[in-house]
Amino acid sequence: MYNQKAYALGSVRSYIREVFEYGRQQAKLVGEENVYDYSLGNPSIPAPEQVNESLHRILNTVSSIKVHGYTSGPGDDGIREAVAANLTERFGKEIKPANLFFTCGAAPALMSALTALACPGSEVIAIAPYFPEYKPFTESAGSKFVSVMAREPDFQLDLDALAAAVNEHTQAVIINSPNNPSGAVFSAETLAALAALLTERSEKYGHPIYIIADEPYRELVYDGVEVPFIPNIYKDTIVCYSWSKSLSLPGERIGYVLVADDVTDSKAVFAAVAGAARSMGHVCAPSLIQRAVAECCAIMPDVEAYDVNRNLLYNGLTAAGYECVRPQGAFYLFVKAPGGDALAFAEKAKLKNLLIVPSDGFGMPGWFRLSYCVSKEMIERSLPVFAELVG
Amino acid sequence: MYNQKAYALGSVRSYIREVFEYGRQQAKLVGEENVYDYSLGNPSIPAPEQVNESLHRILNTVSSIKVHGYTSGPGDDGIREAVAANLTERFGKEIKPANLFFTCGAAPALMSALTALACPGSEVIAIAPYFPEYKPFTESAGSKFVSVMAREPDFQLDLDALAAAVNEHTQAVIINSPNNPSGAVFSAETLAALAALLTERSEKYGHPIYIIADEPYRELVYDGVEVPFIPNIYKDTIVCYSWSKSLSLPGERIGYVLVADDVTDSKAVFAAVAGAARSMGHVCAPSLIQRAVAECCAIMPDVEAYDVNRNLLYNGLTAAGYECVRPQGAFYLFVKAPGGDALAFAEKAKLKNLLIVPSDGFGMPGWFRLSYCVSKEMIERSLPVFAELVG
Repeated sequence: MYNQKAYALGSVRSYIREVFEYGRQQAKLVGEENVYDYSLGNPSIPAPEQVNESLHRILNTVSSIKVHGYTSGPGDDGIREAVAANLTERFGKEIKPANLFFTCGAAPALMSALTALACPGSEVIAIAPYFPEYKPFTESAGSKFVSVMAREPDFQLDLDALAAAVNEHTQAVIINSPNNPSGAVFSAETLAALAALLTERSEKYGHPIYIIADEPYRELVYDGVEVPFIPNIYKDTIVCYSWSKSLSLPGERIGYVLVADDVTDSKAVFAAVAGAARSMGHVCAPSLIQRAVAECCAIMPDVEAYDVNRNLLYNGLTAAGYECVRPQGAFYLFVKAPGGDALAFAEKAKLKNLLIVPSDGFGMPGWFRLSYCVSKEMIERSLPVFAELVG
Repeated sequence: MYNQKAYALGSVRSYIREVFEYGRQQAKLVGEENVYDYSLGNPSIPAPEQVNESLHRILNTVSSIKVHGYTSGPGDDGIREAVAANLTERFGKEIKPANLFFTCGAAPALMSALTALACPGSEVIAIAPYFPEYKPFTESAGSKFVSVMAREPDFQLDLDALAAAVNEHTQAVIINSPNNPSGAVFSAETLAALAALLTERSEKYGHPIYIIADEPYRELVYDGVEVPFIPNIYKDTIVCYSWSKSLSLPGERIGYVLVADDVTDSKAVFAAVAGAARSMGHVCAPSLIQRAVAECCAIMPDVEAYDVNRNLLYNGLTAAGYECVRPQGAFYLFVKAPGGDALAFAEKAKLKNLLIVPSDGFGMPGWFRLSYCVSKEMIERSLPVFAELVG
């Protein structure tokens, strides 16, 4: 006798994790250089040097009891101050330390926000293609998951489809920009249109419809594209952030939930986020790394290596005849599966140790995702394999 | 519109955290030296030097991408191997790497175990006095929380009371030894009697009744007391561990769930633990600190400072006329509240900036808990205040 839902979630591992684990086993068998693993969004750029310098300095200068001791549940006061000041300066909106709730990364940040907003009968909308965990996260939090397709070919929001999907049960719309897996950055215009729709519907239904802005890729953009700060466009926005990608610290589990003062029921929603976190075993975010990100939060990532990969892969695949979305941000390339069956194509690719993620889990069949946070050499070695597969 | 249950959990902060935050504010007002804060189990012994040495060495010798990158969900393979080997050696029972699921500390370990075992109608028993979070944790996981009093005056298990409480709905009994807040270590005899009871009842009801062994204080014992390794006594034991206390790393959020091979439905229970963790936003335990604890897991804490505190406080309070349980482990002293009303006594003490935790939240009114993981000087300064309060 055990929890069947938890068992199902734990035994059917996320496809991405599954492929990643397979790649690791396969590398042992056939050699690392013969596996082309595009599965996982594990940054291939090392953390900026300042991060490790900070870590060394903190360990050398702050007492062990302070460095490794519990912080307050929402995070150390000084650390929240530093990050709030940085956000205020960057986005021109006053963010207070008390608006920030530090978490063990973006996943528990999302779970806390989703749980905080879950009410009887509530629905949460995500834009397909979406990060596959949104579905189990939303359902674990107790809401109904609703998927609305993005608009092709630019993968911006489809406002008509959204207008049809938003109803009196809608509690939140998850916006993930830069988007995983499409690489699209939602424009200020499309977000303004979304804000207008949600404002109108919030009034009509008599309760706020929140945006949950999942922003781990905020700083990973190319060609000078701007990522609008959604709380400046729509006040009822709850931001979930992590330094996993911007500082290349995905294993360290450090992020936050941001509920600014002008969010409807701000203090109550913040308390609900804290309560949701507590109900999932949150005590505090890892303390040493809290200090390090506070010192490093102003550092912008050097995305040049990703940009080189982006162009190499995009150009290589389009030249080989693949249809791809040109990414504006993040480190994913979204590619139409030749033949239309992404799962079948992924199986074919797997036989050549080319590991890709079919888009079925992203809520939009017929495509596959490549994470190009890999070595340039791996991309170069893999291009002939891609060419063979499409031939 | 937001989640009322999450709001309630988040706005009514745990009493202990509340008192701790009050103490921090009060210290700013009246000076650190005039606040006697016995609220929080925040280790006062620094982490062993080897921990920071490990951290420096790992940062200096392992590539940033490896150190700070995602590990597998249950933990890095090499790290699980090191910890499994250490457990096997220490306890004479074969623990495999695949039996370990690393978590962001004991709280999410417990939440994952409790959620993994939660079934429709299930009940979980805790022994009062118990760690207050057991109740919201059990209820958040979806089971009914049942409290069974420990036996006075030695605070061992009351087998008759347990026999009366265990029924066909009982899924687990939480055993926390050394105990927070009583400091009792459950003896091999009492645990063997519990094992016999649970074996008989598991057979009778046709399903296993698990023990969840919550063991963050395992290594913190005095007078040479042995803490039995419960999986050696009762096979259906799921261990939840953290290095928060043994290595003085509470802020770093690092622990594990252990499901050994001979646990009934071991693989399924392990999968349910993984699924439960995933549903709460677990991705992996913090990666840098994973490596450090793997290197340091054989280090035993030097509990001498706690032992000095234990004797100073126990002797001081009993001399002043207080009735205390003599602790065998952990770093808590459990004291009978003069007058019988612990909340009223705690309020009286608070006026003198003496911060104690009334036992009501521990499921056993009329006592209070002192965390003696504090400076010896604070204990010395506080003894006259205790004497005044009882006078």
